[in-house]
Amino acid sequence: MSVTAARGFVASGVHAGIRRASPDLALVRSLEPAVGGALWTTNRVQAAPVEVSRRHLEVAEPQAVVVNAGVANAATGQVGVADAERTAAETAAALGLRPEEVVVLSTGVIGVPLPMERMVTGVREAAGELSLDGGDAAANAILTTDNGPKQAVVRADGFVVGGMAKGAGMIHPRLATMLAVVTTDYPLAPGEAVELLRSAVDASFNRISVDGECSTNDAVVLLANGTSAVQRDDARDAAFASALGDVCAMLARQIVEDGEGATVLLSIRVSGAATDDEATAVAQRVATSPLVKTAAFGHDPNWGRVLAAAGSAPWNGGFARLDPSLLTVAFDDVPVFERGAPTGRSPVLGGPEVAIALDLGLGTGSSSYLASDLTYDYVRLNAEYTT
Amino acid sequence: MSVTAARGFVASGVHAGIRRASPDLALVRSLEPAVGGALWTTNRVQAAPVEVSRRHLEVAEPQAVVVNAGVANAATGQVGVADAERTAAETAAALGLRPEEVVVLSTGVIGVPLPMERMVTGVREAAGELSLDGGDAAANAILTTDNGPKQAVVRADGFVVGGMAKGAGMIHPRLATMLAVVTTDYPLAPGEAVELLRSAVDASFNRISVDGECSTNDAVVLLANGTSAVQRDDARDAAFASALGDVCAMLARQIVEDGEGATVLLSIRVSGAATDDEATAVAQRVATSPLVKTAAFGHDPNWGRVLAAAGSAPWNGGFARLDPSLLTVAFDDVPVFERGAPTGRSPVLGGPEVAIALDLGLGTGSSSYLASDLTYDYVRLNAEYTT
Repeated sequence: MSVTAARGFVASGVHAGIRRASPDLALVRSLEPAVGGALWTTNRVQAAPVEVSRRHLEVAEPQAVVVNAGVANAATGQVGVADAERTAAETAAALGLRPEEVVVLSTGVIGVPLPMERMVTGVREAAGELSLDGGDAAANAILTTDNGPKQAVVRADGFVVGGMAKGAGMIHPRLATMLAVVTTDYPLAPGEAVELLRSAVDASFNRISVDGECSTNDAVVLLANGTSAVQRDDARDAAFASALGDVCAMLARQIVEDGEGATVLLSIRVSGAATDDEATAVAQRVATSPLVKTAAFGHDPNWGRVLAAAGSAPWNGGFARLDPSLLTVAFDDVPVFERGAPTGRSPVLGGPEVAIALDLGLGTGSSSYLASDLTYDYVRLNAEYTT
Repeated sequence: MSVTAARGFVASGVHAGIRRASPDLALVRSLEPAVGGALWTTNRVQAAPVEVSRRHLEVAEPQAVVVNAGVANAATGQVGVADAERTAAETAAALGLRPEEVVVLSTGVIGVPLPMERMVTGVREAAGELSLDGGDAAANAILTTDNGPKQAVVRADGFVVGGMAKGAGMIHPRLATMLAVVTTDYPLAPGEAVELLRSAVDASFNRISVDGECSTNDAVVLLANGTSAVQRDDARDAAFASALGDVCAMLARQIVEDGEGATVLLSIRVSGAATDDEATAVAQRVATSPLVKTAAFGHDPNWGRVLAAAGSAPWNGGFARLDPSLLTVAFDDVPVFERGAPTGRSPVLGGPEVAIALDLGLGTGSSSYLASDLTYDYVRLNAEYTT
């Protein structure tokens, strides 16, 4: 269901033939006037659709999102910008919208121009196939080399939030990564979407790591069309924020679970940090440490590597505060290092998920992170496709 | 020759039986009163010998360095500190020095206490075997799972700088990494060593990456005994700084070449950055990118991954400045991306070294970095030793 779970949204997914045999072009449209917003990659190298869509959102509320997989339209210069503009214009024409009301997203190989003839044909076909149960088709059409679609729906008190995502299946060379589209029938006012999205994304998509990379195309888009017609109050606003956060968290988790070559999900929890920011810095450093991630692959409760990573978490021009004599580390709830000394315990890590908990013993700052392990398959997937 | 290449230094390497069958304890001593200094890991988790040696250097000039391999004496609490103190005291007693004149270095597994009986026996034996040609023996005795010793000597105008290092052969779990000891007969005044070392290390050991990890035990020590008796002037001081830099650079390069599972040396050169700091940030980001490193393993001139990494180089709370439309990227001197557009060229990367050059086209900032590739063997070496 994903993006068509909320009322008043239609979607479709078609095979435009951009680069592969499976569906590769998705369209999502609100049937009622919607408001929305997006968060974009912070990479200095930004794909053409990011540049174009960002500009569109500055001047109009988004009514539709068109996504192609296979070609990222990144590092494609002025041609790429023109192609993204044209994709928006063709989509708008097919839907009776203004081009600025269309958000364009692309994912796929970098440095290759979009095959515009196929794109235009695909957009028209996708517009013709829009339907109230097109969410699954759309979720399938945005994948690149993901092992499967990533969808999430939360039904709350009178409203629905649903979303689809495309993850870190970067097994082709020069592939740009994460996209998510979230729709809701909750009534939002213009300008509210971005801040709500920021909170949700900070606690979800910004707390996952497959390989610590930040792509040229990363985007999360939210469309809200108010068709639930619920009355807003503080409690319901909180319920909406919570539902949005849950949808983003579910999609984020699916992305890590389907990380390249992943065999184990690392769930890292940091408490007792001096500040929340430092807790996040430590969690992120542990989550991106190649030594911690290879140890996880080897089912090794290697607290020495966790210590070494935690002690070198970049923060504020130095490292996050940490005193090993106050630090406790547990694997799967078994303490292996307690306030400065090894406990001598060595839990067996057999499951598909490994929980690493660090209590820094300094303050009340806490944070968490999800990560995949670093495996032979990660190396294979990323090394074997030579140009 | 390494640490005994300069006049007035003796060294030895013996088998103390700390954790392995091969030599594992090295001793270096100046025969004349020396001055010196050291740079230490910036990790918040610091091994006991780091804590003890740092304290020693605050109150005395170092006359000897004792290094053990096999056990890092890290995360060992107060016992570890007492063991490092006792190692210094035993060494001092055997050499007729004060304990504060001894620098203690350890490398090996984290969280295991030093076998002090063997250490004491080994220290006495090493003291008895000190010789003017003991440099090779010392260089061999500090290795852990390195494939071979790392040594460098520069003979300059009337003086000599020599050194030994122990690299990133972290194939055992919980192993702490890089050590280097450099000796010279150049006359330095007390207090000069650290600043000279800092410049040399910034351009060498701080510009290499095997896996971006920062260990609990990293140390670089310099001893200068002035036995060359050369007259110092500005030209000779510059020659010394240059020789010291060269020795550190040669050792650093050997560490990367012997990086875990390494098959290709990545030489990354960034020019045209807004500032030198930003050039270093970009070079480091590219050097530590798993996607760039797996591409190198696959001999893939994957400029898309280089772009994505370069555009997300942490700097000053954000990312280093970069404008893709001004950026040029070359692999082995063949431009693959030129001022914002792919060139369509795809060089064959067949050699043991791959040079990646980025010209940011923004200013005059430049920097460089050496890195190893990310390979199956890196994963195997770091995953297979389960506890």
